[in-house]
Amino acid sequence: MSKKQLNVGLIGYGFMGRTHSNAFLQAGRFFDLPYKVNLKAVCARNADRVKAFAENWGYESSETDWRKLIERADIDLIDIASPNDTHAEIAIAAAKAGKMVMCEKPLGRNADEARAMVAAVEAAKVPNTVWYNYRRVPAVTMLKNLLDDGRFGRIFHYRAKFLQDWTISQDLPQGGEGLWRFDVSVAGSGVTGDLLAHNIDTAMWLNGPIKEVSAVTETFIKERKHNLTGDVQPVGIDDASLFLCRFENGSLASFEATRYARGHKALYTLEINGEHCSAFWDLHDLHRIQYFDHRDEGIVRGWRNIHVSDGDQPYLKHWWVPGLQIGYEHTFTHQFADFVTAVGEGKTCAPTFREGMATDLVTDAVLKSAKTRQWEAVGQ
Amino acid sequence: MSKKQLNVGLIGYGFMGRTHSNAFLQAGRFFDLPYKVNLKAVCARNADRVKAFAENWGYESSETDWRKLIERADIDLIDIASPNDTHAEIAIAAAKAGKMVMCEKPLGRNADEARAMVAAVEAAKVPNTVWYNYRRVPAVTMLKNLLDDGRFGRIFHYRAKFLQDWTISQDLPQGGEGLWRFDVSVAGSGVTGDLLAHNIDTAMWLNGPIKEVSAVTETFIKERKHNLTGDVQPVGIDDASLFLCRFENGSLASFEATRYARGHKALYTLEINGEHCSAFWDLHDLHRIQYFDHRDEGIVRGWRNIHVSDGDQPYLKHWWVPGLQIGYEHTFTHQFADFVTAVGEGKTCAPTFREGMATDLVTDAVLKSAKTRQWEAVGQ
Amino acid sequence: MSKKQLNVGLIGYGFMGRTHSNAFLQAGRFFDLPYKVNLKAVCARNADRVKAFAENWGYESSETDWRKLIERADIDLIDIASPNDTHAEIAIAAAKAGKMVMCEKPLGRNADEARAMVAAVEAAKVPNTVWYNYRRVPAVTMLKNLLDDGRFGRIFHYRAKFLQDWTISQDLPQGGEGLWRFDVSVAGSGVTGDLLAHNIDTAMWLNGPIKEVSAVTETFIKERKHNLTGDVQPVGIDDASLFLCRFENGSLASFEATRYARGHKALYTLEINGEHCSAFWDLHDLHRIQYFDHRDEGIVRGWRNIHVSDGDQPYLKHWWVPGLQIGYEHTFTHQFADFVTAVGEGKTCAPTFREGMATDLVTDAVLKSAKTRQWEAVGQ
Amino acid sequence: MSKKQLNVGLIGYGFMGRTHSNAFLQAGRFFDLPYKVNLKAVCARNADRVKAFAENWGYESSETDWRKLIERADIDLIDIASPNDTHAEIAIAAAKAGKMVMCEKPLGRNADEARAMVAAVEAAKVPNTVWYNYRRVPAVTMLKNLLDDGRFGRIFHYRAKFLQDWTISQDLPQGGEGLWRFDVSVAGSGVTGDLLAHNIDTAMWLNGPIKEVSAVTETFIKERKHNLTGDVQPVGIDDASLFLCRFENGSLASFEATRYARGHKALYTLEINGEHCSAFWDLHDLHRIQYFDHRDEGIVRGWRNIHVSDGDQPYLKHWWVPGLQIGYEHTFTHQFADFVTAVGEGKTCAPTFREGMATDLVTDAVLKSAKTRQWEAVGQ
Repeated sequence: MSKKQLNVGLIGYGFMGRTHSNAFLQAGRFFDLPYKVNLKAVCARNADRVKAFAENWGYESSETDWRKLIERADIDLIDIASPNDTHAEIAIAAAKAGKMVMCEKPLGRNADEARAMVAAVEAAKVPNTVWYNYRRVPAVTMLKNLLDDGRFGRIFHYRAKFLQDWTISQDLPQGGEGLWRFDVSVAGSGVTGDLLAHNIDTAMWLNGPIKEVSAVTETFIKERKHNLTGDVQPVGIDDASLFLCRFENGSLASFEATRYARGHKALYTLEINGEHCSAFWDLHDLHRIQYFDHRDEGIVRGWRNIHVSDGDQPYLKHWWVPGLQIGYEHTFTHQFADFVTAVGEGKTCAPTFREGMATDLVTDAVLKSAKTRQWEAVGQ
Repeated sequence: MSKKQLNVGLIGYGFMGRTHSNAFLQAGRFFDLPYKVNLKAVCARNADRVKAFAENWGYESSETDWRKLIERADIDLIDIASPNDTHAEIAIAAAKAGKMVMCEKPLGRNADEARAMVAAVEAAKVPNTVWYNYRRVPAVTMLKNLLDDGRFGRIFHYRAKFLQDWTISQDLPQGGEGLWRFDVSVAGSGVTGDLLAHNIDTAMWLNGPIKEVSAVTETFIKERKHNLTGDVQPVGIDDASLFLCRFENGSLASFEATRYARGHKALYTLEINGEHCSAFWDLHDLHRIQYFDHRDEGIVRGWRNIHVSDGDQPYLKHWWVPGLQIGYEHTFTHQFADFVTAVGEGKTCAPTFREGMATDLVTDAVLKSAKTRQWEAVGQ
Repeated sequence: MSKKQLNVGLIGYGFMGRTHSNAFLQAGRFFDLPYKVNLKAVCARNADRVKAFAENWGYESSETDWRKLIERADIDLIDIASPNDTHAEIAIAAAKAGKMVMCEKPLGRNADEARAMVAAVEAAKVPNTVWYNYRRVPAVTMLKNLLDDGRFGRIFHYRAKFLQDWTISQDLPQGGEGLWRFDVSVAGSGVTGDLLAHNIDTAMWLNGPIKEVSAVTETFIKERKHNLTGDVQPVGIDDASLFLCRFENGSLASFEATRYARGHKALYTLEINGEHCSAFWDLHDLHRIQYFDHRDEGIVRGWRNIHVSDGDQPYLKHWWVPGLQIGYEHTFTHQFADFVTAVGEGKTCAPTFREGMATDLVTDAVLKSAKTRQWEAVGQ
Repeated sequence: MSKKQLNVGLIGYGFMGRTHSNAFLQAGRFFDLPYKVNLKAVCARNADRVKAFAENWGYESSETDWRKLIERADIDLIDIASPNDTHAEIAIAAAKAGKMVMCEKPLGRNADEARAMVAAVEAAKVPNTVWYNYRRVPAVTMLKNLLDDGRFGRIFHYRAKFLQDWTISQDLPQGGEGLWRFDVSVAGSGVTGDLLAHNIDTAMWLNGPIKEVSAVTETFIKERKHNLTGDVQPVGIDDASLFLCRFENGSLASFEATRYARGHKALYTLEINGEHCSAFWDLHDLHRIQYFDHRDEGIVRGWRNIHVSDGDQPYLKHWWVPGLQIGYEHTFTHQFADFVTAVGEGKTCAPTFREGMATDLVTDAVLKSAKTRQWEAVGQ
């Protein structure tokens, strides 16, 4: 008995195009999926490069116009891995064409774009998900399970950071291909949408909705040369973004994202403190979680350093044996495996576009608060 | 040739009375001081207990009225280790009597009290210092030296936390002896003055003045039984206090203090990120500092885990040999040794009362911002 | 211009069959190989299972008799991932048939088997390698490069351990499928060949040949039930194996492997101490290396905790971006990519069978010394 | 009611003279001792220096001939902190004179010396102890308690190391004052007696007697200039000493001490692996212990990082509050407090001279095995 086929069309071949393609290929090797996944087509504007990408990753064909890709009857799923300013238009068109849609984060450049995208996929009733991949780090999923068990009791504090240091040099140019993250009109914002959005998505998954925020942002280097023209231009994005907030469950939190934290490459950290338990996780050692349970016998109470690599921990039975760690790209494989499984079962796969919009509502409030210098309520 | 004598009178015999007494005794054994230090008298209200304390620590006499202690001609230095609400009155009287004054932190319950204390010691021209002992952790002093060297370049970020978990239980009572930290009229505030003040003092020493703050505070458990009467009463202190701020040097920072962070006993952490270097320190492993220098050769660049125990690192040549750590109480010994040395040289010993007042100005702004929900400038 | 084809035939579908298959698939996606790799056939005794394995991993065909596989003209490379007692016979036959041979470690059950295998591949002049995959952890390769640079100066000490805890229970059975590691006639030895061989291979790669050893082994649980028959039988393998040794460069070392170290899953650790530098690595956090250089300025000298994830560190430019870690299976992908590249360039790919034999000579000396209770020279 | 007096006479004013003196002074401040301890006299050959030492530490008098000190009727306790070659003669004379004796480790330069010392104190029935201070690190004492509870089950493995790097330079001289550790006739051996003896004492306390050993030692730098004469002379001491052993309880162990492990200052590490539990401790972070209990729930099982600073952990209620660490010198204070308490109760204080001799028997076997290249049984 042969499996049903799931034909994927990818848009974008940058960093995220690679992580998604790897997920499409690996998911079926390690997980028992209800569909056979076919890499049908990849689409990007540069014809030569997109062909090379297709050959490398095993896509059967390539396109240079995303509208054509969406029109193709042999495509079931549109995966959006192109810059942020294309997300809304593509996703809405794909939904209208009845395609399933997976979209790189952030969903929109702002909550208004996101709201239109949610409306489109919900109207079309097509499966949809946003690639907030860090939910699927086994240690993070495990933390979600521990919280859902009620082990932590009342939550008092949450903290999250995303620290990088790659833009500190004044000599780094902005603008042009590969540098769209510096262009606020394309990206929507700087670290707020690029990094902080990850922190917020995980936080709300683990700790519920955020009620109100007080934020500050900064652009440390005010002008940069344009990569192509050489013109010195103002920098439009935020280099750093910090906020305090209250969650609806009454807990207090602080968040920070920056590309000016020397010594940190991609240090996403999160900590949650409850009445009974606390936990800490970070991306630089993503296979570990620090866990504390006050109910442990006092004399030997301590933070447990858990190497999340056993078969009874989330996703791990599909990989190797205890002690052998998996890496970054596996989070995408997990999300794709979950998505395909959910499609097979007629269920939704979190985070849906609606959940992605919830994060955009928080980042909007953050950016607004940084301007008004007031506490701002998170919108609906 | 015999040394000059320095006669100490201590007020208060609680936790801080012990750390200060130990410092008075140990400083002369390990440091070459310009004075011979004599433990002349200790003063507290309970006559039996104060005698026992005097005997244990080798004080020659005891008093039960601090005014009498100040009047004694054989006392050169008044050390204030009594509850916060006594600091101003005692310090001002001691200064007027021409005594040197050492005062436990925070200097006043608020900046107004602190301002009067500064005025008194400056008018009397008496040596004065506030026991912000964490400056004298060798690793922290070393960090100050590295910053003063200019190694870090422009500073972008500062972060500090002081996390504890000892008041989470609803069953913990408030009020009565040994529990004055719960009484806002005595303590001035909760964690803001008790813990956050430490973070702020170190931060301004390392990174300069703070310009403006946006804060939030919380009292998680709203009512507690009084320890003596058994009456259930509102809790007046803040259990948690967080703020964002800008330093005058343009760096962005976040601070947090709480007694509701499960799993953390006394976790004071600080991190500073500069253009070239970053450093991290925490109180649970106070003999270590994490240091990163981007100018290291790329292939072997990493956070250096420095075990601060060598003779060429601050204060360490006075103790043991490399690899052998010192502990918490040594920070007080260092401060006392520095104070006595400064007195001998006719210099001031930081932090002076004026510096202590600067921290009270920030904590005042924090408490104000938490009420107004606005950014508040730090006063003068 | 299309690439030349490299047709792979795999023997064995256990844990190592999976890691090798993944490597065959992933290498071409992430590395620019001189051949297109085709998964031509997989061979194992159980026809149903081998078919399922072939389908899952994309092998074009399956076989149940390894001799048939070797006879096939459409196979260029025989990869041996079957139990240790089959390595010699298969490898020799494959070499005689002119096939390239990759062999899981240890090469033989003992050095005599290994010697015959070396003779066969060298006589046939076929490319050959042993899957000592841990050499290709980026951090370990980087350490090799640092040593080759001469940074360390004279080497004084080397230490290696491989600690597991999965066989502590008396209830664990021995014998039968999936449990061949407990059968000394199949495995050759217990932890000595299974774990210690990894430590030895890396050690000699980094620090040169081992001259003499003094060893002790132990079988803690003396009898176990057979998995199929239920009969209680003596345990033939070593549960723990420790040795001291001298390297030819004059350094002293200690090695240990055990499956009775509670709390450790697969904790391969290594440390090397030289005149100027030291380094430490372990498998539980394989993307990190601890590095110390005494020539660093004294005041800020410390162990550098290096997150090996940058593009200028070995293999990493082929994967993601700084801060994002790769995992265990990537080591196999690296070895396969290196092997195929070496084949394309007409070079050998270390470790060759000859290097694999060198490790068997050390494990033979270890097992002998444990019996004679004497220092034993490592044979030639 | 005033306390009985305990009059101490110290011999030696080097590093250990300081740690012991500090213990004599601090013990009574922090522990409720049955005696008032008086620092009666300190003895060393250099009259000026011994006077200065006496003044600094508060000794009432000084001597330059240890025999005179022993003859003094006003001395109850002789504390030996002079070089190893003086231990036996002094201790035997002190015992004969009916004095209590505390002796720095190692007890003798070899087991024969130790045996005579044991005979003397046992014949004289005087209280005696050897300063193996690391037993009194709170984390180590706690580990002893956990083992005595039976939590660990059968023990399989023990590992200990003492790594330093301060003698790597060829330029370091030998001979003359302050350098007696390089003189084998004074010290008895190199790292074997200086460092490894610490590891062995703790190991036998925690894990019982050692049965047999196989050892190797090395002197990496064969000749050094004499500090005073400038003559180049052979180095007589061992720079590194490693051994494998079996304990009487059947567990296997490895030990190592060296002064050639670059990057390590005084890294004493120990690990013990039992059927149910494992634990790890090291001297560079002496206030922490890593503890693993396999009986913890599988999903959240991990190594517990315990910050040993709570009042219910050994010795800690006498110091500060949770989270605040103590340091190296406190171990001596604990041992002295325990000794004085034991004297008051008419009990012995471990480690007695007899226990100190047991360690010398192991170091003798180690040195012998390194020469014979055989396994050597530990003598009686």
